[in-house]
Amino acid sequence: MKLYNWQFAPNCRRVRMFVLEKQLDLPAIEEVIGSGLRLLPQYIDSWPHAMVPMLETDEGDRIGEAMAICRYFEERFPEPNLMGRTAVEKGIFEMWERRAYDECLIGTAEVFRNSHPEFVDRGIPGTTEKVPQIPALIERGKGRVARYYRKLEAQLKDNQWVAGSRYSVADITTLCAMDFAIMVEMPIPDDCSATRRWYEQVNRRPTAKQSL
Amino acid sequence: MKLYNWQFAPNCRRVRMFVLEKQLDLPAIEEVIGSGLRLLPQYIDSWPHAMVPMLETDEGDRIGEAMAICRYFEERFPEPNLMGRTAVEKGIFEMWERRAYDECLIGTAEVFRNSHPEFVDRGIPGTTEKVPQIPALIERGKGRVARYYRKLEAQLKDNQWVAGSRYSVADITTLCAMDFAIMVEMPIPDDCSATRRWYEQVNRRPTAKQSL
Repeated sequence: MKLYNWQFAPNCRRVRMFVLEKQLDLPAIEEVIGSGLRLLPQYIDSWPHAMVPMLETDEGDRIGEAMAICRYFEERFPEPNLMGRTAVEKGIFEMWERRAYDECLIGTAEVFRNSHPEFVDRGIPGTTEKVPQIPALIERGKGRVARYYRKLEAQLKDNQWVAGSRYSVADITTLCAMDFAIMVEMPIPDDCSATRRWYEQVNRRPTAKQSL
Repeated sequence: MKLYNWQFAPNCRRVRMFVLEKQLDLPAIEEVIGSGLRLLPQYIDSWPHAMVPMLETDEGDRIGEAMAICRYFEERFPEPNLMGRTAVEKGIFEMWERRAYDECLIGTAEVFRNSHPEFVDRGIPGTTEKVPQIPALIERGKGRVARYYRKLEAQLKDNQWVAGSRYSVADITTLCAMDFAIMVEMPIPDDCSATRRWYEQVNRRPTAKQSL
């Protein structure tokens, strides 16, 4: 198996962390990022979706999208379970996983992509067409992350982990998204003490650092 | 079971279509949309995520996010299978499902929300805070949908269904997103003949109309 990877990208880290939590070795890693933080042209030629991560199996199947890759690993290596056992648990885990992605990760990406000088004309991933930055998305993205922090704080006041009483894929996406937010100068707000408690707790797991 | 619903919303239709493809009766439906296309205040009070759809089970569990709800139904009622059987199939189905959501549904939502007069100050769902429209997102959204159409056309030239050789959840999200795009005046491009063939084929299934 081979993972086409950009080490810095939060979406790639989601996959690496998931695999490490499965107590598996990482697949062979191929870095596909070149100068100017751009995907290598030969990678885009072979994978027109033009996004990372992408997993190539030993049989030659190619799977893109972080959670689709994680689903593949969950099915092949069911233990430890990270995506839920019962119907309700699967639903609740996925709800919180998607929320961390849509609100925290995408919100942060809006801030990052629309302000970073290397991303002029690359406002959207997955295409080589020019897509201008939209400065108004910086403020909108900050608002999304700020609202997500408050929502998560309310959840973590009553729950040890993001999706309830045990560690799950929702914690993985939340940590990867939150570290991205912190890097883009949207730290955990001072009054979010349950979130700080969770952040320390999730960072005590070896996979938090191993996945970086 | 009860589904908190906004009949018009593509995300709610995804769930209804999924349930109907399972050959199940729809759950009890509670419409939670009021005047000005706004969620009812009592719904937001009881569900601060402030989004639809949301499923309440007979046991009182509450699951939001369309695909999380579908996952719950897939697990409780495995046949007919819509989310894949093998690890690879699950990965590939989810990849195409997420792509239809991120590129076609969100792209269309960017056009819709940032141009519709009822959505002034509601540029983002899931909050009662004022979030101004960003007119530049209209063009960006149109570009995303246009690129998605081309990507999908390439896939449907070689495959009968969106994720390969059989109908899946990826067809459901794609149809709901595409009908939304068509409504917002982004019809299937004239030169996308494979996509037109697929669109006719998916619309011959009874669930396409039953879910409207």
